[in-house]
Amino acid sequence: MSTRPITTREIQLVAYPDGLPAESDFAVVERDLPALRDGQLLVGNRWVSIDPAQRVRMNPAAAGYLPAFALGAVPASWAVGMVLESRLAGFEVGDLVLHNAGWQEHSIVSLAGGRKPRVVVPSGRIREVDFLGPMGWPGLTAYAGLFDVGELRPGETVFVSGAVGGVGSLVVQLARRAGARVIASVGSREKARFAVEDLGAHEAICYRDGDIRDLLPAVATKGVDVYFDNVGGDHLEAAISVMRPGGRVALCGAVSSYNSAGTPGPSNLFLATAKGLTLRGFLAWMYEHRFERSNAYFGGLIDEGGLVSPHTIIEGLDDLAGGFIGMLKGSNVGKAVVRVG
Amino acid sequence: MSTRPITTREIQLVAYPDGLPAESDFAVVERDLPALRDGQLLVGNRWVSIDPAQRVRMNPAAAGYLPAFALGAVPASWAVGMVLESRLAGFEVGDLVLHNAGWQEHSIVSLAGGRKPRVVVPSGRIREVDFLGPMGWPGLTAYAGLFDVGELRPGETVFVSGAVGGVGSLVVQLARRAGARVIASVGSREKARFAVEDLGAHEAICYRDGDIRDLLPAVATKGVDVYFDNVGGDHLEAAISVMRPGGRVALCGAVSSYNSAGTPGPSNLFLATAKGLTLRGFLAWMYEHRFERSNAYFGGLIDEGGLVSPHTIIEGLDDLAGGFIGMLKGSNVGKAVVRVG
Repeated sequence: MSTRPITTREIQLVAYPDGLPAESDFAVVERDLPALRDGQLLVGNRWVSIDPAQRVRMNPAAAGYLPAFALGAVPASWAVGMVLESRLAGFEVGDLVLHNAGWQEHSIVSLAGGRKPRVVVPSGRIREVDFLGPMGWPGLTAYAGLFDVGELRPGETVFVSGAVGGVGSLVVQLARRAGARVIASVGSREKARFAVEDLGAHEAICYRDGDIRDLLPAVATKGVDVYFDNVGGDHLEAAISVMRPGGRVALCGAVSSYNSAGTPGPSNLFLATAKGLTLRGFLAWMYEHRFERSNAYFGGLIDEGGLVSPHTIIEGLDDLAGGFIGMLKGSNVGKAVVRVG
Repeated sequence: MSTRPITTREIQLVAYPDGLPAESDFAVVERDLPALRDGQLLVGNRWVSIDPAQRVRMNPAAAGYLPAFALGAVPASWAVGMVLESRLAGFEVGDLVLHNAGWQEHSIVSLAGGRKPRVVVPSGRIREVDFLGPMGWPGLTAYAGLFDVGELRPGETVFVSGAVGGVGSLVVQLARRAGARVIASVGSREKARFAVEDLGAHEAICYRDGDIRDLLPAVATKGVDVYFDNVGGDHLEAAISVMRPGGRVALCGAVSSYNSAGTPGPSNLFLATAKGLTLRGFLAWMYEHRFERSNAYFGGLIDEGGLVSPHTIIEGLDDLAGGFIGMLKGSNVGKAVVRVG
């Protein structure tokens, strides 16, 4: 008796967005599921991730960055699902796996093409969805960005933009626990309250209250040692102006520029020379060797009930595109995920 | 019998330049030499340095950078001179010292205010003027910038802008000897020939032949691992576009922006995230602990006749301002110095 599905549904990118994506740039398509070949898994997805950085790969001329997504194909993204059929050693039917085959009900996963799938094990308070957040690549991004790239030391001041987002919300809590003073930047007064009262930031700035280049110096009166940059643009310029000598900038994302090409960089970059600043870009996979450590840290925190791990949950693939657009507009709090199953 | 001078001549900054400085922004002023206090040296200068970075401190609003030079005061600069009178332990009359008291015939030097004076000893082929170049702060800038900041490894490709200038000409030779492939950017065909034939660059680009963002990719077809940035602006943008994954940018200077405020930064800085690039600003004094090592390296090279160490020599303080302006316009080759004595 086989329960193997015959068809599946997937989200395809059908047009390259101009500026903010529109729902018409995406289509929900039903198609046949091919038979597995050796070395492949069939995975029934339960959760898929939507990430601001995916927007970059919807620019056909994103030359030098990761390759642009092809039209008519499924945009790659992280997903957690259950193995329904396995022709890949080390994976059994019933295993829960984290993979990056994307926005679809069923994925055919192999070791080639993209990051390797990993078996993940929810236990205690650690839920399936956490593997798209603190127990997954966003967690590693926060952990490696703050400690390996940002080289945070106790007693320093950290500035975080996008501070209630999927990565930012983890960075705030991580930095606070590491003994840093934490300044958060967010897009609304309500988010500012959340950043301070729930996540533990010492101060929060709503960047819509004015120009961040005026707002930040008024709060960061003693300067900033580490800037965890999720947005780029004016935020980066503001941070550079208040960085302390020897300060570090972890260039994690630049969501402010994802919807446009050729955004001018910070006009005060010459200060990096005078103050001996380091700006270092990174993607989480460059620090894959720190995954166990990051998982141990966040796993412990979740188990003891010490982590605030907000999610914005989109129900089903049909609403995925709308959720993705909403995230780019800054309307979500925490990690945005789509419940597929 | 005293030969102590009673008066001295100095260059004062009398107006903050708007754009490229004019000679009228400077004045040669004669004034009385005060008596020495305890802890001071009277130094008769023989060579003083003119450096592109001094232009930055002639912007009154260079907030966050080094403090602006005061009007009516002598701009600080490196100088080599002889001790004429000493009330400072460790310094004897007749010692040759490297200090940073600036554009004047006689300097009163102490351990406070600026970098400490250092006794320097010309010997063999090492001349007095070399202490303003390879044996001094420009040498340390090249050495620390390439190895400590740029973390150059053998077999890598280095791109150097301002490649026949005081620092750049040393960087080209250092990188070549370290086993790197060296691409030089300069402002004329003649300088390009010099960079290749005399300094040993593998390729040289005259940035006036077109847009460096087109010229560099055509030459750096296999990418660049280390960019030693003396000019900023379009050069930095061009370099970022061709940097290899994990590449390093040593932000040493940004002469392209010194005559203007608020120059837009590179519009492709988001590539730093995708490629895991590190951009690190530095000033030589941040690597003062490497001075002995840098001196040993360059001293050995000079002694064996293995260093090409070009200078542009300006004769006397009266021509200093003109020489400084000429340097900012890019008309000199090698380290620009003023012979005072």
